[in-house]
Amino acid sequence: MVILSAASSVTPPQRSCDALAFARLTTMPTSDAVLSHARENRAKHLEELKELLRVESVSAQPVHKKDIEAAALWVADKMRDAGLQNVKLMPTGTTEKPGNPVVYGDWLHAGTSKPTILVYGHYDVQPGEPFNLWTSPAFQPTVRDGKLYARGATDDKGQMYTHIKGVQAHLATAGTLPVNVKFIIEGEEEVGSENLDAYIEANKKLLACDVALVSDTAMWDEEHPCLTYSLRGLVYYQVDVKGPNSDLHSGTFGGAVPNAAEWVAKFVAASKDAKTGTVLIPGFYKSVRKLTPAERKALTKLPHNDKQYAKELGLPAGGLYGEKGYTTIERTSVRPTFEVNGIYGGYEGAGAKTVLPNEAHAKLSMRLVADQDPAKIGKLFEAWIKKFAWPKGLSVKATNLSGGWGAKVPIDHPAMKAGVRALEGAFPGKKVVFAAEGGSIPVIATFQNVLKAPTVLMGFGLHDENLHAPNEHIRVENFYRGIEASARFFDEVATSSK
Amino acid sequence: MVILSAASSVTPPQRSCDALAFARLTTMPTSDAVLSHARENRAKHLEELKELLRVESVSAQPVHKKDIEAAALWVADKMRDAGLQNVKLMPTGTTEKPGNPVVYGDWLHAGTSKPTILVYGHYDVQPGEPFNLWTSPAFQPTVRDGKLYARGATDDKGQMYTHIKGVQAHLATAGTLPVNVKFIIEGEEEVGSENLDAYIEANKKLLACDVALVSDTAMWDEEHPCLTYSLRGLVYYQVDVKGPNSDLHSGTFGGAVPNAAEWVAKFVAASKDAKTGTVLIPGFYKSVRKLTPAERKALTKLPHNDKQYAKELGLPAGGLYGEKGYTTIERTSVRPTFEVNGIYGGYEGAGAKTVLPNEAHAKLSMRLVADQDPAKIGKLFEAWIKKFAWPKGLSVKATNLSGGWGAKVPIDHPAMKAGVRALEGAFPGKKVVFAAEGGSIPVIATFQNVLKAPTVLMGFGLHDENLHAPNEHIRVENFYRGIEASARFFDEVATSSK
Repeated sequence: MVILSAASSVTPPQRSCDALAFARLTTMPTSDAVLSHARENRAKHLEELKELLRVESVSAQPVHKKDIEAAALWVADKMRDAGLQNVKLMPTGTTEKPGNPVVYGDWLHAGTSKPTILVYGHYDVQPGEPFNLWTSPAFQPTVRDGKLYARGATDDKGQMYTHIKGVQAHLATAGTLPVNVKFIIEGEEEVGSENLDAYIEANKKLLACDVALVSDTAMWDEEHPCLTYSLRGLVYYQVDVKGPNSDLHSGTFGGAVPNAAEWVAKFVAASKDAKTGTVLIPGFYKSVRKLTPAERKALTKLPHNDKQYAKELGLPAGGLYGEKGYTTIERTSVRPTFEVNGIYGGYEGAGAKTVLPNEAHAKLSMRLVADQDPAKIGKLFEAWIKKFAWPKGLSVKATNLSGGWGAKVPIDHPAMKAGVRALEGAFPGKKVVFAAEGGSIPVIATFQNVLKAPTVLMGFGLHDENLHAPNEHIRVENFYRGIEASARFFDEVATSSK
Repeated sequence: MVILSAASSVTPPQRSCDALAFARLTTMPTSDAVLSHARENRAKHLEELKELLRVESVSAQPVHKKDIEAAALWVADKMRDAGLQNVKLMPTGTTEKPGNPVVYGDWLHAGTSKPTILVYGHYDVQPGEPFNLWTSPAFQPTVRDGKLYARGATDDKGQMYTHIKGVQAHLATAGTLPVNVKFIIEGEEEVGSENLDAYIEANKKLLACDVALVSDTAMWDEEHPCLTYSLRGLVYYQVDVKGPNSDLHSGTFGGAVPNAAEWVAKFVAASKDAKTGTVLIPGFYKSVRKLTPAERKALTKLPHNDKQYAKELGLPAGGLYGEKGYTTIERTSVRPTFEVNGIYGGYEGAGAKTVLPNEAHAKLSMRLVADQDPAKIGKLFEAWIKKFAWPKGLSVKATNLSGGWGAKVPIDHPAMKAGVRALEGAFPGKKVVFAAEGGSIPVIATFQNVLKAPTVLMGFGLHDENLHAPNEHIRVENFYRGIEASARFFDEVATSSK
């Protein structure tokens, strides 16, 4: 999941006011029966979600392969319970290298005059580590102060599940849906969705749709539900450096051989200018679209306060850091980045061990913006690491772990307007905003390119909910409201998308 | 333990030839009964050593506190079996922060005209990690091809134990020893012997001696037993860098906050010049004694081959690396170093995790040479890390984990000559050499300063025995010969040290 930070939102340009005004005229209220179903079953829905959160479906760790399968089967069961049809686990990958299954389900009886909505989400989660920093165990869902804590609570099990329940609210009461729906819930989002593009390409006909609907982003803040219209791309590398054939004693061999950990550090340090925060990979910025004065001006008008933002992150005033010449909002949404996601080599235990690590590793990723091709940026990175002045005694391997394009969705699309109305209905009295997001959901570009469908990104998470970190959680109330927003969206989009 | 690399030996200056000639004149042969005892009990001695190697006495890891105690008790038992007296576990440290016990034992009936030898060794070991790289488990001693594999086999359990058996060979046969002996076997060598200096200072009278005897170094190679006359000092730091109050999503927050892992890397990179390998800590080289042309010339004469040395380490030709302008032998013995012993922060598991690590760490150590005061160098390091251009959002802590002076022992001391004769007797037909060692045994400086005693460093390990690394081992034959050398040393030193 990608989640919206306060820093990475943008309010809609002026024209959206007109769009909203128009949108309101065409509102199609959702029936009381449907809404009551969503509201009266809240406790039950929460217990169901907890069941799913207990499944340790960590896609990055092969040891959890069976949990992945269990999570997929659980989702399929719940789709059937909701009234979805043709539910099945669809294999991905190849016979030699099978991927995790996509759970498919549909309901296609609204008629051809009604739009078809493709709901996407994922049942896999990030690793739970470091476990010792969780207040309650990562895979034992626990509610505290109105928040449900567990790995996957907000990313994406809690959010994805709202749509299965949104469908159920209609089918269990009206016995019908105002639109046709298709669901694909995948199991590899947290490892870069590496088999998803091929799956979509191979099932283009089955997945044909007018609009995709995804809840894997966040609200602007508790007062502002939002639709995300822009995402960053990503390219992610594992770097492995190896020297002598074993760890060596630092007294005996210190001074004689290249130290793998030292040189991984040197490579990392050389990749970004310490003073300016500029990425030093040659050609990295070449295709970055220059920010227009108008865009920069619009961004400065967002309700954002560096001091407050730093404080919430536990940083002192002036403790933010990034590319010189750009604001925090720009740096986290419309500028590319280069970050260390992990670095490791040598001794990590308590106390002193006088060892020269013979191998060391780094996980490095870059967030990309409009027009940066992840494949091309990957090649630039590979050229950069190749030409780096490694000592002869070290061998260096760079492995591309994942990559994806950024994406933009036009905010005046009828489905986006339907999304606004659904959110306004589910969160009465709150103002809906549009956001540009710093994270990545590569499948959004695939929906656009392969299925020719725009995506409504309707987030029910919040940026402080520790996704990808210990103590991940979701606000229970927003999970409930998400179900209602989903049920409302199917009504709203029925009139506005075709 | 410090172990001798092929690169860190020096042959004795000319005068040692005279010393050896003189020494041979005064040889005092060890009785057949004593030698037979050592030889006939080889299998038994090996089984005993295996018992000790099964004890996971890892001093760096608090979880092994009970194993430390068990190892100390085992050593005490074996001292008593050998005929040593007054055997006891002596506490170290303070009531608030107790250290690991020193195992003391003595035999003081040789008379005041005979010298007193203080045998030092350690029963603690390095951590076994990474366990997956061991062929047989680290704490399940296994003999393969004449080598005994286990953590601590060569460092220092196997070597230390030779002297307990050396004493036993005398007392079990002759019922007497030609010299007075005292043993102190400590349990904190692998974590910097932090309580040992205070223990020695507090027990100055109890430990009064003429010569110390330590087997915690190595032979030059299989053909050259050796005595180590010079050691490097050490100062070791843990660096902890902390930023935001939790790990953050690299999409949402990438570009906004300082990345702890990136900045630890930048600090490491800035501490040593990539092109010249020069340590960049201001003042680091100030007190380093300049190598004289004569010393450098002598070092070039040592049997050493960079190509062969690199090959043995699994490095390509030209794969060695270190301070420019110095030979491999110089860099590993008479020049100081700065090394990364460990670096870690962020995600280390399989696959991709898009996290911004909010903390990162490094274990950094410096090997020091003659005249470099570890306390002063520590201060220089602390000043350097303090003045480094850390972003304001990161807090940085540097903790001194251990430190110690280097040491030199005059090679013409009568006890050194006795050591040569003992080795020549135990390794017939092999040439004994003197070595300058790249590693550190800080207690040698303490013996010199507090007890006014020179130390005979008689190593039975070999530089390729993977100390501080997976698959640590000792050659079983050298363990047996070590026992014999110890028994012989007590005879040889009886006539030459007073």
